[in-house]
Amino acid sequence: MSSRKITLSESEMPKAWYNIAADFARPMPPPVGKDGKPIGPDALARVFPMNLIEQEMSSERWIEIPEPVRAALYQWRPTPLHRAAGLERALGTPAKIFFKNESLSPSGSHKNNSAIPQAYYNKQFGITRLTTETGAGQWGTALSHAARLFGLECRVYMVRVSYRQKPMRQSLMRLWGARCIPSPSTETQAGRDVLAATPDTPGSLGIAISEAIEDAVTHDNTRYALGSVLNHVCLHQTIIGLEAREQFKKINLRPDVVVACAGGGSNFAGLAFPFLADKIAGRDMRVVAVESASCPKMTRGVYAYDSGDVAMMTPLLPMFTLGHGFIPPGIHAGGLRFHGMAPTVSHALREGLIEASAIPQLECFRAAALFAGSEGIVPAPESSHAIAQTIREALRAKEEGRERVIVFNLSGHGLLDLSGYQDFLDGKLEDFEQTEATLRPGIESIANLPKIG
Amino acid sequence: MSSRKITLSESEMPKAWYNIAADFARPMPPPVGKDGKPIGPDALARVFPMNLIEQEMSSERWIEIPEPVRAALYQWRPTPLHRAAGLERALGTPAKIFFKNESLSPSGSHKNNSAIPQAYYNKQFGITRLTTETGAGQWGTALSHAARLFGLECRVYMVRVSYRQKPMRQSLMRLWGARCIPSPSTETQAGRDVLAATPDTPGSLGIAISEAIEDAVTHDNTRYALGSVLNHVCLHQTIIGLEAREQFKKINLRPDVVVACAGGGSNFAGLAFPFLADKIAGRDMRVVAVESASCPKMTRGVYAYDSGDVAMMTPLLPMFTLGHGFIPPGIHAGGLRFHGMAPTVSHALREGLIEASAIPQLECFRAAALFAGSEGIVPAPESSHAIAQTIREALRAKEEGRERVIVFNLSGHGLLDLSGYQDFLDGKLEDFEQTEATLRPGIESIANLPKIG
Repeated sequence: MSSRKITLSESEMPKAWYNIAADFARPMPPPVGKDGKPIGPDALARVFPMNLIEQEMSSERWIEIPEPVRAALYQWRPTPLHRAAGLERALGTPAKIFFKNESLSPSGSHKNNSAIPQAYYNKQFGITRLTTETGAGQWGTALSHAARLFGLECRVYMVRVSYRQKPMRQSLMRLWGARCIPSPSTETQAGRDVLAATPDTPGSLGIAISEAIEDAVTHDNTRYALGSVLNHVCLHQTIIGLEAREQFKKINLRPDVVVACAGGGSNFAGLAFPFLADKIAGRDMRVVAVESASCPKMTRGVYAYDSGDVAMMTPLLPMFTLGHGFIPPGIHAGGLRFHGMAPTVSHALREGLIEASAIPQLECFRAAALFAGSEGIVPAPESSHAIAQTIREALRAKEEGRERVIVFNLSGHGLLDLSGYQDFLDGKLEDFEQTEATLRPGIESIANLPKIG
Repeated sequence: MSSRKITLSESEMPKAWYNIAADFARPMPPPVGKDGKPIGPDALARVFPMNLIEQEMSSERWIEIPEPVRAALYQWRPTPLHRAAGLERALGTPAKIFFKNESLSPSGSHKNNSAIPQAYYNKQFGITRLTTETGAGQWGTALSHAARLFGLECRVYMVRVSYRQKPMRQSLMRLWGARCIPSPSTETQAGRDVLAATPDTPGSLGIAISEAIEDAVTHDNTRYALGSVLNHVCLHQTIIGLEAREQFKKINLRPDVVVACAGGGSNFAGLAFPFLADKIAGRDMRVVAVESASCPKMTRGVYAYDSGDVAMMTPLLPMFTLGHGFIPPGIHAGGLRFHGMAPTVSHALREGLIEASAIPQLECFRAAALFAGSEGIVPAPESSHAIAQTIREALRAKEEGRERVIVFNLSGHGLLDLSGYQDFLDGKLEDFEQTEATLRPGIESIANLPKIG
């Protein structure tokens, strides 16, 4: 029974985050401005508090987790590492499958792991108000929760179509005291411009980011918070993999394959980077980042400087990208619809430390349904991509007769995404195939940007 | 930090359930037939498997939890006991407030604690198919999950109005392989009779129970499962309070006040009965069962023999009841809309071991919003009643300047009830006042039943 769930005590909870930048053989290219010149900390000072900018640019291997952050994370952490014995039986595989259960947080996903330190550092820096954007709603709810915890005001620009489709995510944010506004809105110049040109637009993450940044830089004591992509966000998420490593030590096992889905890259980085430290040190293992076939930046994008938003208000980051002009189809895994991949994850891919896999939506929902039935937890549509890849790996282990150890990240639960499951069960979902033609406009949107040197 | 969350290891998880029937000074009145004569085990044999009937009628103090049941419960148990430090600060109370977090189960409520052993015992008895009813949907989802785990077919009759209002609960049941049918249905004589008379009926729990029992007794290898009220269901839930007692021992504290909401009675019994054992043994404490003011069976009902369903297919049980003909208003706390209270809980109330409190809906939603903001967890509307009572107790402790220890049961989360919160936040909820006139039809429905001797 004890190999079915591996827990950690309070004293075993990590005391520092792991910064992979310290261990890359070749350094990452720096963020640059539109002129192609590297930017310094000051260029970000109106957008983020300086203590987080320092973290963003740090090359220290270990960064201490402040005690108030640990206390707040302790509400639901350390999270259990589960053996998916039911899934193994259903697949008839000799592989041992484990998953880290990040669905137990207040907002039901890994997002709280970074929302809490971000709110804490802003508070420490004297900030009283946070702005952000949200698409599917996980990040917006997580930041609302963290802001309330540390007594900060919070404003969330939510992509208009999601705002209408996901009233429950809105209610969660309101309960936690945040103001949630459909984007584009009349609150910002960026929003007003879009509304004037296209009053009926469904909105997009790119527009919402532009609005949230504009709001931050035009208000006193206000900063912007991002839920993925950036180095400090990936850093905060490494608590997932650090715990998982300790949990594997307890049962005297080591994973042969590490799997996580990747939208902006933070939950993948969170599970994978601490294991990558072992790989860099010489241990043999495969580490797989799984993206949606509808938004295939790692498998079909380019490695280039690109902006995080449509209006190009963010600095240019070195990443695998489909171009900020790329419009992904409306898959249920909203968290995987971002056009670019975190610079740290992109660099790990370039360096051959990790692999990328792209899986279409239907295979993911079938995998999720099998997992829900055999393990009793309904996964978030994003997490279902990690499960689909895990099933591929487990079936390969079966073919090869290998007793492989596989671990994946259950980045969140799907209790607020059950309408997607209903569509799947009713046979209403179809796969969308990206072609050269559908990918071209995105790639063209970055044709004239500075190149990675 | 360690006093903020008290955990138990696998080896500290209870190995036996506590049966309060062994410790009542006066025995409970027996269940009877419509003729007023006590019924024996055989009278229930078509409805429940004999191993559960034996549990239902047992007077043993401790009943061993079978190893496969413990293994299944271990997926999310032992659940943490949290100190609600944020709520204490928000109230400015000297009271120490704790809550047991039963929201971490697969279906998000305590219901799984009994669904799993019920599925297990049915499987052991050779049953291959389970039927049940569900109103709000927590019990239906929990039983679907447990049936899938033990390889049983499962059919859930869901009150028609809930079936339409809660498509997400339906999707959960389908994901776990159950067939969920709106009730009244054409699958049973009971359903067809109702449909013929009132084709547009919204359905009721009473009708759905009648359908589920008829289905069970007219199909081979099929039995019925109930999610509350009965002795064996309350028994299974005592794992909650047994864990909580161990957790309090770890921090060298004892609760002065124990609080839980009470619909059919099972989550209340689960937390309260193990503490009541201490009270029966002489320890001074208050134990409060909180009902909805819209369905006030303990505070305004009668103690009498009554049936569990409208069609009177169940035996007559001695309970505080508003009468099986009582139609409660459509409050969001669907789990508190049952007309009667578990015989064990009713007996404890008659014996003066516990108190009852009735709280209107709006006070509960206000309490829930304060809790969600200060503790980060959105409670189920049912659980919000326990929170509202806890807040009353904490404010009284403040008036009296007493450092009282209060524990309540967070019986479930409210992530699938966020539409209720939306109505609350939008100011659309109103309280409903029960009067002599509105309570009369229910009481009249039991006027001609046998009396408790």
